[in-house]
Amino acid sequence: MENFTFQNATKIIFGKGTESQAGAETARYGKKALLHYGGGSIKSSGLYDRVCRSLKSSGVEFVELGGVKPNPRLSFVREGIKLCREKKLGTILAVGGGSVIDSAKAIAIGVPYQGDVWDFYAKKASPQESLPVGVVLTIPAAGSEASNASVITNEEGLFKRDAGGDCLRPKFAIMDPELTFTLPPYQTACGVADIMAHVMERYFTRVGAVDFTDRLCEATLKTVIDATPVALAQPDNYDARAEIMWAGTIAMNDLLGTGRVADWASHYIEHEMSGIYDVAHGAGLAVIFPAWMKQVYRSDVNRFARFATRVWEVEPRFDFPERTALEGIERMKSFFRAIGLPTTFKELGLPGDRLEEMAKKATEKGPLGNFAKMGLQEVTSVYKLAL
Amino acid sequence: MENFTFQNATKIIFGKGTESQAGAETARYGKKALLHYGGGSIKSSGLYDRVCRSLKSSGVEFVELGGVKPNPRLSFVREGIKLCREKKLGTILAVGGGSVIDSAKAIAIGVPYQGDVWDFYAKKASPQESLPVGVVLTIPAAGSEASNASVITNEEGLFKRDAGGDCLRPKFAIMDPELTFTLPPYQTACGVADIMAHVMERYFTRVGAVDFTDRLCEATLKTVIDATPVALAQPDNYDARAEIMWAGTIAMNDLLGTGRVADWASHYIEHEMSGIYDVAHGAGLAVIFPAWMKQVYRSDVNRFARFATRVWEVEPRFDFPERTALEGIERMKSFFRAIGLPTTFKELGLPGDRLEEMAKKATEKGPLGNFAKMGLQEVTSVYKLAL
Repeated sequence: MENFTFQNATKIIFGKGTESQAGAETARYGKKALLHYGGGSIKSSGLYDRVCRSLKSSGVEFVELGGVKPNPRLSFVREGIKLCREKKLGTILAVGGGSVIDSAKAIAIGVPYQGDVWDFYAKKASPQESLPVGVVLTIPAAGSEASNASVITNEEGLFKRDAGGDCLRPKFAIMDPELTFTLPPYQTACGVADIMAHVMERYFTRVGAVDFTDRLCEATLKTVIDATPVALAQPDNYDARAEIMWAGTIAMNDLLGTGRVADWASHYIEHEMSGIYDVAHGAGLAVIFPAWMKQVYRSDVNRFARFATRVWEVEPRFDFPERTALEGIERMKSFFRAIGLPTTFKELGLPGDRLEEMAKKATEKGPLGNFAKMGLQEVTSVYKLAL
Repeated sequence: MENFTFQNATKIIFGKGTESQAGAETARYGKKALLHYGGGSIKSSGLYDRVCRSLKSSGVEFVELGGVKPNPRLSFVREGIKLCREKKLGTILAVGGGSVIDSAKAIAIGVPYQGDVWDFYAKKASPQESLPVGVVLTIPAAGSEASNASVITNEEGLFKRDAGGDCLRPKFAIMDPELTFTLPPYQTACGVADIMAHVMERYFTRVGAVDFTDRLCEATLKTVIDATPVALAQPDNYDARAEIMWAGTIAMNDLLGTGRVADWASHYIEHEMSGIYDVAHGAGLAVIFPAWMKQVYRSDVNRFARFATRVWEVEPRFDFPERTALEGIERMKSFFRAIGLPTTFKELGLPGDRLEEMAKKATEKGPLGNFAKMGLQEVTSVYKLAL
């Protein structure tokens, strides 16, 4: 186990009807807020009205900036920064999923910063200060509600990049599983793939003696594997939605990475796909992860065999560990297919003609990954395995 | 799953040599500290010198109050409060295990409070304010390094009582598994029983649809069950010590209780034993928990069967769920015995002549427990089953 520091102060407010606390929680951080959200779904569901009422009843004035797109854009972030500065807004309430939250975080670190906010994503600066951000979560997926990261796409060049730092953790996250009842099946499944990917990026490590966090990872994966078919068959099954939602936060709040060195190659490999083709991040991950696994499993067959037996209940074959390992990868692919996700470029409807370009962009700052080092050649190979 | 709020801001600094950060972390909260510790073991091990050096090099002046006893005493807490007030100490660094940390927490909430600190333990007041407390942990057991609770014994009447509240969470916890290499086997095992008890108090709940936290609980239990025999056979096995140490924090930092209603009857039943006889809390729990289980398992045989199959790897017998459940309890008893713990009053060397008195004290404020309600009669029955 590696030495580590772990601190996560985000206040989780979880359960039915908790969105009524949005106003009181926001008021702790400021009386003038930016209300940041995505498309119209929060209006048609009535959530928008409930949140506005809660803000008003707590005496919070707010300015709205709706219209955040999936794979949120830098230009829109800049608009938000300008708006916060002009209107002197001291806090941000993000109502939505990972894209809205990541956009809110970008605005929040951009406002007090003298330079251009893209500096944080281009790794020219590291964020030291942030407006306080609160969240009402509507999509369990990114885990951004308690994470220290934000991912933004720069339209000039279609670069999808991340920024990180402790000041990016939201102050509070309101999580009502009922808000996810109306998520379409495909979006539910994409969220689950993202959650699983966050666990697997941490699970596949070369650090030894990490039994406790291994088991916590396995517990998290098994939970969503069990709950997802239920949530898809019965979209208003509170229990299944709640399991997925809470697991999604823990998958990304850094607990599961304590004492480990995570990999993250698959995320960066996928970012180039969703940067160029604007596909759903979770769907991209369902395509990339099995390919990445096939590329790298020989570096540590035992770990992949453990994954297969503990998570996917493959019968352990110590005489054929490689077969056990591969069977685990196949079961994961079958699971993705069963919940309606693509597992190849073809199924995702993507052409295979820009693999080299994506691999170049993915590795422009050096090789990816920690479980196995992935240079240009290896990343290209992963894309090919994913065709 | 029940609605819940979860926030744990304690900064965990984990790994080899981390005690050198004690000074810098303490300095964030004040330049005049109380250094609180127990017996001489931190002096003979050299830890005391290292911590003092670290404090001095960070410019922290400190006043010492050593000599905290296991089952820490109210009179000593009062001494600490007086000392902090007289010397105007603004922060407390606790170096030790649960007793030292709980004593430090009691002092920390006592200093800013106008009334008598016992009010918090007698539940006449709830703590709203606390001096900042930092921890250098030497015994994985109580989980007090990141918990919101403190347990103190009032010598007048030998009442062992707890106080709780968010302000009781330490600001930071420095956890170096190497500091636990010198723990004697019995103390190591007592710590493990305490850790397991903290998980089991949460695991045995009547709240349904808590699959994720069930799995996290099972992961935590399996980790310490695997690691403990290794740590006992090789006291300087860093990996095993590290697994136990980190599991001990998670067992008690409230994550595992999210969405659930915990039981806690066994803890209160044990408190009366260690209050009167001054036995090690973990040893008392190893005696009480199997007895409590035998008393209550019929209230939810399925949950006990799950415990048996998932944690103790008992073969599931759906035709005889009760047999499966009982086999799990037996395996837990065997495990306690195998790591050198008593599982009966007799093995613990206690007489059985004050059962009624203890049961009366345990239930003086009403019945205990949530998994099963335990009145005077049921608590007496648990003590009898434990003879």
